[in-house]
Amino acid sequence: MSLNQKITIAVDVMSGDKGSDELLPAVISVATHNENLTLIVVGQEEKLKAKLSDHPLFKEGRIQIQNATQVVEMDEQPQSALKNKKDSSMRVAINLVKNGQAAASVSAGNTGALMATARFVLKTMPGIDRPAICTVLPSLKSKYKHVHMLDLGANVDEEPKHLQQFAIMGSLLASAMDKNPSPKVALLNIGSEAIKGNSLIRESAKLLQQTDLNYIGFVEGDGIFFDDVDVVVCDGFSGNVALKTLEGSCKLIAEYLKRSYKKNIFTKMAALISKPVLNSLKAEVDPRNYNGASLLGLRGIVVKSHGNADRVSFENAINIAVKLAEQDVVGQIEKQFSVEDGITSDSEQI
Amino acid sequence: MSLNQKITIAVDVMSGDKGSDELLPAVISVATHNENLTLIVVGQEEKLKAKLSDHPLFKEGRIQIQNATQVVEMDEQPQSALKNKKDSSMRVAINLVKNGQAAASVSAGNTGALMATARFVLKTMPGIDRPAICTVLPSLKSKYKHVHMLDLGANVDEEPKHLQQFAIMGSLLASAMDKNPSPKVALLNIGSEAIKGNSLIRESAKLLQQTDLNYIGFVEGDGIFFDDVDVVVCDGFSGNVALKTLEGSCKLIAEYLKRSYKKNIFTKMAALISKPVLNSLKAEVDPRNYNGASLLGLRGIVVKSHGNADRVSFENAINIAVKLAEQDVVGQIEKQFSVEDGITSDSEQI
Repeated sequence: MSLNQKITIAVDVMSGDKGSDELLPAVISVATHNENLTLIVVGQEEKLKAKLSDHPLFKEGRIQIQNATQVVEMDEQPQSALKNKKDSSMRVAINLVKNGQAAASVSAGNTGALMATARFVLKTMPGIDRPAICTVLPSLKSKYKHVHMLDLGANVDEEPKHLQQFAIMGSLLASAMDKNPSPKVALLNIGSEAIKGNSLIRESAKLLQQTDLNYIGFVEGDGIFFDDVDVVVCDGFSGNVALKTLEGSCKLIAEYLKRSYKKNIFTKMAALISKPVLNSLKAEVDPRNYNGASLLGLRGIVVKSHGNADRVSFENAINIAVKLAEQDVVGQIEKQFSVEDGITSDSEQI
Repeated sequence: MSLNQKITIAVDVMSGDKGSDELLPAVISVATHNENLTLIVVGQEEKLKAKLSDHPLFKEGRIQIQNATQVVEMDEQPQSALKNKKDSSMRVAINLVKNGQAAASVSAGNTGALMATARFVLKTMPGIDRPAICTVLPSLKSKYKHVHMLDLGANVDEEPKHLQQFAIMGSLLASAMDKNPSPKVALLNIGSEAIKGNSLIRESAKLLQQTDLNYIGFVEGDGIFFDDVDVVVCDGFSGNVALKTLEGSCKLIAEYLKRSYKKNIFTKMAALISKPVLNSLKAEVDPRNYNGASLLGLRGIVVKSHGNADRVSFENAINIAVKLAEQDVVGQIEKQFSVEDGITSDSEQI
């Protein structure tokens, strides 16, 4: 990735399961590959200085340190993080976005606390009731080889207007990130006929038909990967169920494959010979290549990395933040919703 | 499978994508392996007679033919099937259960029409508001190597009392089918802490805590396969999303694997050598081995096979019907709900 503009990203290197030893190399790698990029690593200053002070990128000022004395625990409740961790690496990184010192922030901290903190510090955009979590999943049919799916669990008990807002944000994100002029937007449903689905989906479909979006109808769970669609919109509960089921299925098959190859001396030989194939498969379905979920609908960019992200995985999340900043996705959403505002209210009155 | 009692099963061999040429061999195989079993195949008599009349099992009377002149199409609306297909193979098979001529029925017809017909003909059991679809999915942690999951899409917009009923039915099914004295029952959720989840799940959890079930709390999407749980309870929308996402994930990985092995001459050789391993993997995650979903909550047993079931797959569905009949799962649910009725009403008044 090479940038045409100078961009600064704030990176919380203290949250997550692995800690700064695993996350700092990701920061260094991203900075090495992008000359126009400055990365502010947020965490305990002394500790980080000891690791970075001799690095040429630190001396150059392209990796900087911002002190934060606290860390939000992976099982910490959002309310506790908000109340007791005002100097956490997570919060300080988001503060840098709020203050305009960074164009985006990245954290591998726990989703609930990150969403609550981001919402509290940055606030929701005008015209958007609820922020949503959006990530990229593999697709065999989309021209762009992936789909953007939201919401993945920031919300529960949504109303149709929320799904409409998710659809608009997701479509703008797909446009910006993939240079896709007209992203195909679908609703996640349990049947492809219009009469199927729960009341939320049926009502949401009516709203989406009234928008300017390229709304193509419903997809089912398997359609995420096999239908020609670029954005899949769903409520946070179903979206999270789908995401976790996908993760579980991949782990399940990996486990079965491992067992099958370990059965006897012949299968062990086959495993050896198949290693390059299996490695290429692993790379293709590697969740690390899909790491980095965008928190959309806030007045600033926040990217959530998987909690147990390693350096490869975390690097991917930082690169997503860079792309979102470069394409000014937040600005585009804001612009759309300042226009949209009238339309949404009108359609609600009908 | 060898039975201790004489059982008769009605099998709709006309519905589904593949037709009777694929489904009849499954019937013959099941009958061959079970001396105490009689199978009534339902469909166009002349056509079936031409295929079966020379078969020793037909001459013995262990495979019988019941005429049905119509077939419900795979994309036919439930209402149309109910109104216009009164002599369909699907309906006639269920009629045999209602009349006591068969202990259970099996069909590969479309889910909506099958559920509507079963509900119309057999009626829902007293104490049960809505029937549910339950199937078995692979598990690495459950002692029984699989979990029973319900509802998978018979219902949308459920209330907590419906999930409570699903939990009781699922637990009884798991007890009967696995000889599991105390099935571990969990609710599908998007976080393992009690505060998470939508309002339906939070309220359902409170109801389940009041039952005698071995209720162990929440599982997430990946927990279906990796948590120590025997019954996963969910609303039909989430359940169907999870099931279809699982199917899609497996197809996705199979597709990637195929591509990886086809890359060049070395990978093609590796594929050849790995064939036994891949076949054993295929057998383990083969959806055909998990084919056969039970429609629970009706006054009779109806098993739904996947529409594109082949003979192996359809045989599995018939065997599930046999097991449900042998263990009298319907009788057990009925008994439980006649006791439960008072309790449920009481707890609702609280």
